[in-house]
Amino acid sequence: MGTYKIAVLPGDGIGPEVTTQALRVLERVGARFGHTFQTTQALVGAAAIEAEGDAISDATMALCQESDAILFGAVGGVSRYEGPNSKVQPERALFRLRKELELFANLRPVRPFKALLNASTLKPSILEGTDLLVVRELTGGIYFGKPSEIRQTPHGLEAIDTLLYSEGEIERIVRTAFELARGRTKKKVTSVDKANVLSSSRLWRRVAERVAADYPDITFEHLLVDACAMHLIRRPASFDVIVTENMFGDILTDEASMLAGSMGMLPSASLGTRQTAHGTFGLYEPIHGSAPDIAGQNKANPIASILSLAMLLRHSLSLEAEAQAVERAVEQVIDAGYRTEDLQEAGTTIVGTEEMGRLIAEAV
Amino acid sequence: MGTYKIAVLPGDGIGPEVTTQALRVLERVGARFGHTFQTTQALVGAAAIEAEGDAISDATMALCQESDAILFGAVGGVSRYEGPNSKVQPERALFRLRKELELFANLRPVRPFKALLNASTLKPSILEGTDLLVVRELTGGIYFGKPSEIRQTPHGLEAIDTLLYSEGEIERIVRTAFELARGRTKKKVTSVDKANVLSSSRLWRRVAERVAADYPDITFEHLLVDACAMHLIRRPASFDVIVTENMFGDILTDEASMLAGSMGMLPSASLGTRQTAHGTFGLYEPIHGSAPDIAGQNKANPIASILSLAMLLRHSLSLEAEAQAVERAVEQVIDAGYRTEDLQEAGTTIVGTEEMGRLIAEAV
Ligand SMILES: CC(C)[C@H](C(=O)O)[C@@H](O)C(=O)O
Ligand SMILES: CC(C)[C@H](C(=O)O)[C@@H](O)C(=O)O
Repeated sequence: MGTYKIAVLPGDGIGPEVTTQALRVLERVGARFGHTFQTTQALVGAAAIEAEGDAISDATMALCQESDAILFGAVGGVSRYEGPNSKVQPERALFRLRKELELFANLRPVRPFKALLNASTLKPSILEGTDLLVVRELTGGIYFGKPSEIRQTPHGLEAIDTLLYSEGEIERIVRTAFELARGRTKKKVTSVDKANVLSSSRLWRRVAERVAADYPDITFEHLLVDACAMHLIRRPASFDVIVTENMFGDILTDEASMLAGSMGMLPSASLGTRQTAHGTFGLYEPIHGSAPDIAGQNKANPIASILSLAMLLRHSLSLEAEAQAVERAVEQVIDAGYRTEDLQEAGTTIVGTEEMGRLIAEAV
Repeated sequence: MGTYKIAVLPGDGIGPEVTTQALRVLERVGARFGHTFQTTQALVGAAAIEAEGDAISDATMALCQESDAILFGAVGGVSRYEGPNSKVQPERALFRLRKELELFANLRPVRPFKALLNASTLKPSILEGTDLLVVRELTGGIYFGKPSEIRQTPHGLEAIDTLLYSEGEIERIVRTAFELARGRTKKKVTSVDKANVLSSSRLWRRVAERVAADYPDITFEHLLVDACAMHLIRRPASFDVIVTENMFGDILTDEASMLAGSMGMLPSASLGTRQTAHGTFGLYEPIHGSAPDIAGQNKANPIASILSLAMLLRHSLSLEAEAQAVERAVEQVIDAGYRTEDLQEAGTTIVGTEEMGRLIAEAV
């Protein structure tokens, strides 16, 4: 038993409503397992821009730094900050958190629930046996390289972005992927790059091969990102751990979310190097966005947020039994036929965000 | 009637065998419609590196320049040129052709044949009505930006790539997309970018909006690349023309190929600005690669190459009836139940590369 400090950043759109349900589940975990979770809420995204003048304030950054983990909702999708000329972007909150807290390893597991095999747009027979983990580099690459700007030239405007990786950045993320593969069944790492075009990918490949040599027990392969985008939906069950750079990881995980039936099912953990008293410091968030079109309508699927909470319990608080209890509760409620609107299917019972949260909390 | 000059570059792996079948179909078109097609073959890729010291020679470039169109097979996938330290890459042939011939507009249509709806890993109900065209920018972006290199720093190696776009480059590709949308049924353009992260995407969005204003008859929307990777397999039938930058187009089209059942079905056209006596100069190639694992085994699907030939007839030679005759021939043979190995299904007849080519040629 102990006290755990969690910073809660609900953000924009459906962020607050799904986070509320994750907190409801957390409360239930506390009661059942006898833990005290000290949660502190703060603003991020458009909400923070309006109230505090920036997408995330220094005070909120400090709060995060003093916590054991961060439970994050979603930011962005707010049209008045989306124009190509907008000065502050809600997404800045995410970039600042990821970069300043050195959350370089973004873990995005994709394991379709049996009861949801039919909910996907892919054939159930293709999904059978799918259990993969994308390890996405999160603090480097084209997200952070400079210059990144629009500039005037004699022939009109031009824009530039910079994709930059150091050996050290590549090495630590690839090593993380191999370590994670050791704890899994298939024991395989697929490193995804575009080595036939990018210099950064050629360095990536070189470093990945060096790291792979330290893990003779793990099957290792390279795959080009375009081929991977195809094989993910052609033979998803053949993958185990996929490790890749920031932008490729962003694209491939949104695609992979369809394997699980809905993006509303997929959690993520962003881990750094810092160890707290309880585990590895990290930020946990659904991979879905703020979905402004359904915000405030009690329609959003809170499961991605609840499964993110389970990852938080596991990785940052080292509460494995509690994490599993949450995951089992989700599976139970799904097995019992409850669905939010994103997973509509004949023979299921559609419930709202709140009701789904309540059902899962009760099942814990 | 007339004489048409076509440069034929079969390349590596399965490139030669699929191209041979396209040429067989071309011969049949010539006989049936009374045209003389003057074809000249040359080496590209690994084959050219070995025989001529570079992935494409100046003589071959000159041949291309003097032709009305190029029929291209595939390059790359040759392991001795794939190491991260390899000096000449077979892919250089493609980059040189694209860049020097200014083939900026890469058209990749995806329209699953009815008889193949079941061959996809996606559910047939999802595919119903899918008829999309990806217009990929092909001569800019991170494929060509400088610096692109691996360099020594005091803290070890680092690698850099540069994503660069000028207003002019964006404008011409977006305009191409809108023009093409005008000739289609759904009359819709989806511009795909990552404007919440990239400066180049913010410029892209600005220019796309300016161009869109000239086409009030076309529905227009922006979509983030990660969301697009998801929606492509979630609601493919909702797309019409998708316009995007070079790398995003590369990834999304490989993914989209699964909608058609197999990458072996998908043709592409790369068009430039130059007008020949007969139409728009262009390069035509399957979107699949050299597939070294099945090369020389009479297993490859020649349909992507044959459909690329149909695009060549249409866009570069302005032979629309001939193009349609080829497309109808392919559909007939598919409807008759013939498949290559990549499309194996109960109740179909598996044939080799040659036999498939012969059947289609006969059906023209
Ligand atoms: C909101 C956006 C900037 C972000 C990203 O691209 O990283 C999101 O898509 C994600 O995957 O977490
Ligand atoms: C071979 C490779 C360099 C090429 C590309 O990335 O453009 C291929 O994937 C394509 O899509 O034509």
